[in-house]
Formats: sequence, C-alpha cells, structure tokens
Amino acid sequence: MSQTDYVISCDLHAELVQQAFAKRGYTPDECADAARFCELAAWHGIKTHNVLKAVHLDDLFGSKVGGCVPGATIERLPQRFKAIERWNANKKLGQSCAFAAMDRCMELADEFGVGIVSMDNAFHYLWGGGYVIDAAKKGYIAYTCCTSGTSEVVPFLGKTPTMGTNPHSWAFPTTQQLGYPICIDWATSAVAMGRVQQFIREGKELPPNAAVDAEGNPTTDPNRAKSLLFFGGHKGYGLGLINELLAAYTGSGVPSLRGVHGAGDPEEKRTPNFYFQCIRPEAFACEDFPKGRDQDANVGAVLADIRQPGNEHCLFPGQIEAEAAKRSAANDGLLFTPKEVDELAQIAAEAGVAFDRDALARATS
Amino acid sequence: MSQTDYVISCDLHAELVQQAFAKRGYTPDECADAARFCELAAWHGIKTHNVLKAVHLDDLFGSKVGGCVPGATIERLPQRFKAIERWNANKKLGQSCAFAAMDRCMELADEFGVGIVSMDNAFHYLWGGGYVIDAAKKGYIAYTCCTSGTSEVVPFLGKTPTMGTNPHSWAFPTTQQLGYPICIDWATSAVAMGRVQQFIREGKELPPNAAVDAEGNPTTDPNRAKSLLFFGGHKGYGLGLINELLAAYTGSGVPSLRGVHGAGDPEEKRTPNFYFQCIRPEAFACEDFPKGRDQDANVGAVLADIRQPGNEHCLFPGQIEAEAAKRSAANDGLLFTPKEVDELAQIAAEAGVAFDRDALARATS
Repeated sequence: MSQTDYVISCDLHAELVQQAFAKRGYTPDECADAARFCELAAWHGIKTHNVLKAVHLDDLFGSKVGGCVPGATIERLPQRFKAIERWNANKKLGQSCAFAAMDRCMELADEFGVGIVSMDNAFHYLWGGGYVIDAAKKGYIAYTCCTSGTSEVVPFLGKTPTMGTNPHSWAFPTTQQLGYPICIDWATSAVAMGRVQQFIREGKELPPNAAVDAEGNPTTDPNRAKSLLFFGGHKGYGLGLINELLAAYTGSGVPSLRGVHGAGDPEEKRTPNFYFQCIRPEAFACEDFPKGRDQDANVGAVLADIRQPGNEHCLFPGQIEAEAAKRSAANDGLLFTPKEVDELAQIAAEAGVAFDRDALARATS
Repeated sequence: MSQTDYVISCDLHAELVQQAFAKRGYTPDECADAARFCELAAWHGIKTHNVLKAVHLDDLFGSKVGGCVPGATIERLPQRFKAIERWNANKKLGQSCAFAAMDRCMELADEFGVGIVSMDNAFHYLWGGGYVIDAAKKGYIAYTCCTSGTSEVVPFLGKTPTMGTNPHSWAFPTTQQLGYPICIDWATSAVAMGRVQQFIREGKELPPNAAVDAEGNPTTDPNRAKSLLFFGGHKGYGLGLINELLAAYTGSGVPSLRGVHGAGDPEEKRTPNFYFQCIRPEAFACEDFPKGRDQDANVGAVLADIRQPGNEHCLFPGQIEAEAAKRSAANDGLLFTPKEVDELAQIAAEAGVAFDRDALARATS
C-alpha cells in the first residue's frame, strides 16, 4: 500500500470529530471546540495530539470513566485581583476550557497588558502549542503550562517517579517577521513514554539520561525503561517543578496520585491543573529601538541576527509546525498516514459518519 | 595557609562595597543598593556574583567605560496597560534598577494579581536569583530574565555564537513549607564560560554537548572551546530565545553586537534588557484544595509527595543557597575564602576602607 498521505477536508474532519464527541454526550459547543482543536493540531502536523489521541484519551480517562464530564459548566470564582481569574473547570472538556481561558487572557491583556487564568479540576487539553500559536496569531505573547495526567518522571537525583512530564508552551507574534509564530513547546521529560514504545518497536537504544528501570537506575534499554528522567538534569527538573507549584497553589492533589484510579487516598484529587497567560507586546516597547526601527522591525532584526552566517541550518521553534501547515494548505486539507486513516475509519464507523477512504484524495506535495 | 573561610561582618562588608562604589561616582542610594545586593549574594553562598564580580564588571563594562552611568535616573514611560510598566534604565546601576523594578512589580501584583516591568538600556544586574528570592520571601511568585552582556552561545544546529547565556530565575514563597523559597535559577548555556576556564585550570575534559571550537564543531577540550552550546539541545535554545524576544520587544539591539565595543554598527545598542514579574499566589487559589488543606498546606503536601521514599536525595532548587544562608547565620557574617579575602583586601585598599585580615574571625561551621 502506498505510504502517501491521505487528504481529509476540514469539513469532513470537523464532522467526524463532532459526531465522535456528540456520541459521547458532549454538547454542540464542546464538539465544535474538539473539532477546532483537532483541526489545529492536524493542520500543524502534530501527530501525537490529533483526533486519534483525543478520542483515545476520552476513552481511557474521559467521559467513559468520569475524568471528563460532558456538558459541565466552568465556574468563575470571585476575585479581588484584576488581571488574574481563577476558574473551576469542573472537569469540562479540556479543549473548551483552554480556548475559553485563552480568550479571556487576551481580553485581560487588552486592558492590563497581561492576563492570566488559573484552572482547577481540569481534563487534559492535549497540545498546549495549539492554544499559544492561536493566541500569537492574534498578536499576543502567549504561555500555558499544565500538570500531566500521570506521574512518570523521576525528580533529579531521585529514583521514584512522582512528577509528570509537565510541558511548557510559549508563542510569540512573529508572523509578520517569519511567516509564523515562534512556538517553544515541549515536555520537561527527556523523552515521552510514547517515544520509549517507539524505541522498543524499532529495536533501538534510548539516549543516555532519558529513563530509569524499575529500581530507579538509569538505563538505555527501552525494554527495561520504567520511568522517565527530566531533560537537562537539574534544569529540566526545575522547569517541571514550576508546573507542580503553580498547580499546587491553584488546587491540585499530590502529584504521585495524579491519574491513579482505584488506589491511594480516595480524598486526594486526580485531576491536572492549567495555567494560561497572554501579554500584549506593545506593553513592553520602551520607545528607544535602535536605528529608527519600530517594535516589529526590531524583533525582525534580532531574529535575522541570530541566523547570521554559520547558522543557516538553525530552525526557529515553531518552524516545523509552520512547514506542516504550509503542506496542509497546499493540499487543501489535513494530512493523515494510511495507518491513521485506518483508525479514522473506525472512529467514523463508531460515530456513524460516512467515510469512504477510496474517495479521499492523496497528498501531492 | 588554612583554607578555612573568613567571616566578614555584614557591617564591614557594607562599608567596603559602599565605599568601593562611592569611589566610582555612584550616589549613596546606588552604593546602598550595591551593598545590599552583594550581601544577599554572599549570604546565600553565591561565589560567581558577589562583590568581587560586581567590582570586576564595573571595571570592565561599567562606570569606567560608560556602560553604566553613576547617578542616572530611571525614566518611567507613560503606559495605557495597567499591570505592566516600561522603564528606560538609562544605564543606571543594575542592582538599583532591579530592586526598584521588583518593588514595583510587587505593588502592581497587590492590585492586579500580577505585575511586570520591562526595562531597556540596562546594565548587568548580576544574580537574578537574588531578586526573586527576596520577593519570594515577601510572599510573591517572582520571575526575572535578562539578555546577557555578551553573545557567546551558538543556537541549536548552528556554528556561530549569536546569543547570550540568557538566564531565567523563578522563586516561589515556600518558606513556611521548607524554610526557604524554592529558587530555580540558571543560565540557558550548558556551562558558563567561567566553568570552561576552571576546566582548563584543572586539566579536565568538558562534558559533551557543552562547547564548540572556533569552527563551530563540538569539543570536550576546554582549550579548544571557543563558544558555548545551550543545555538540553533545542529545549535550552528555545528558553534562551525567550530572553532575546522579550528584549527585542522592549528595545534591544541585535544580540551578536551585545557587549561588542569598537566594532560593528555604532548605531546598534550594546546594552542588555531586563524583564521582571511578580504574582500574588492567592490570586490562583480555586478554593477546592483536597482534604480540607488551605493553599499553604497544599503546597506543602505536594512538595512532600515529590520527595517520597526513593527520592530522599532530591534537592529542591534553592536548597543549596538556603544551606549557605544557614551557614552565614551560624557564623554571624559573610563567608569568604582566603583567596577571596586577598581580593577584598585590594578592593578595600583602593576604596580607602580599613581592612585588617588578621582581625577577621574564621568560620566555625
């Protein structure tokens, strides 16, 4: 079978995602948010957090087991601090919560320069990069981080996994300068657990300092890898700790029980927490840009300077996602591998959506 | 000669620093800020950014060459965004600027939950950790980052050093839970250039992926090391890029000319930029802490959970500095090595401060 990607129109994709979520009891608004998010991920070539992952997560941890509650209402708590809001998500769909929170951060940033929403009782929002890229395209410096659904990372110098892969996502409104927003977006673990599985399938050794075995000793054998290590030693550990602390101030339970069901203290919370932030870049401009440049031109000059001779091969973070988006645009749809299309067909069948893979176009670029 | 540390009283240290800076033309307020900062660094065992470094920086890049202007006035630009201020430092002493900016961030945070100051035309503020620890002790979640005074780091996949070691410093108000604020504070380069010199002196190999030679090829030979690499590959590079972008939006010149004097476009700026932020942790509290804990108890429970059995050897970031501070307190003064005292004696002589090393106490713990 040809490995050429299939092209799925945004309309068909939206119908498929919406019906899949409707079938699970989600409201029309939630279904629309799920579709919007999954399209954003697929459009930017994000394979790890597209509709397949969204449905998989919902099956394992979401509406089927009570981790996510279709139709739940976000509760906005009263607040005396003007530029920060605190929301109880009540386990509403993560994508709906994240889009709404980012929208509110943008409104707050319009007035205060910066806006923050902290969120308790959340459910996985999938790919943080999607929300910050979306906000950066609207002109904001955007940031989000969250605690992960499970604890599989060992703190620096430890042996027991008591922390999550705790990702951070930043994006900057550099579309005018580069054609896309710079997006710095990654987990704080050296690799993801999914990568370990991939190393097993491919019979490859893990990189050093990425994982530990059941006794907490470092291993490069993916078959013995039981837990993950933070990237960059104590520095990555510190970054992962930021997510735990922001979550703890917001309302998290103890991290080692996160995602643990049927064991441990039943009164501890199992849910992740979210942190969202938007900033208006004009709020920083000190009106003394060199050589008569304005703010946008100055950002462009700095970026060009970083990639001066010798650095032609440097990518800016977000460039790979931007190139995937270009490919989606060129093919006028979302690109999925034949194997992914197999899974999509199954989701379509379950959701009762007509899905004729033979009628799908194949990618031409 | 015994290698036991000498104890210098905070009073003598303050007099020494103040006189050294007064001699260079700094105002009494600036001298007091310099002394306050150098004490903070020495108290926490920070050897790389104490008074010796402060004086050295001033000699090389500061009042003697115009990079720092004694008696300069900070200009606070008008602003329509309420929680962010933009300040033109006019090359005023970095310590004075940083303390003032953090104070203002705290005031803004008291009203808005979050307060930010972006600063242009700055001069080196030395140790970012000092300012955030100070704010965290007052109850705030504090953050600062800056662009470095020189560009010696090669962007990921590149060969030419066009970026700084661009540090980030976060601190959290965890004194009640741990006895000290958690402080996550490091440069985004794998090692500092000072470490490379140390490896040369000690005849040791550099760790892999820390430095490149003059051709931009990775080397573990410290004698061949010409530029640095970011820690953690593309992840550390992304973190370093954040500092460059925040600086670019604020008003920086191109990074490759930062700290370069007498070469390159004279109209480009050479100064670093600062970013400061404080947040009131109460602004996050979603009033649904598990098991009836309050916010402080919840943070304590999360931290205790991270260090559960197997992780007894894990340090929290900031713990080493806190242990140094305990040692300072136990010895009732600031601890300096005999070699450092040699340099202090020289600074004292230049500043006209009586400094009798034989009269100094020696550390007893």
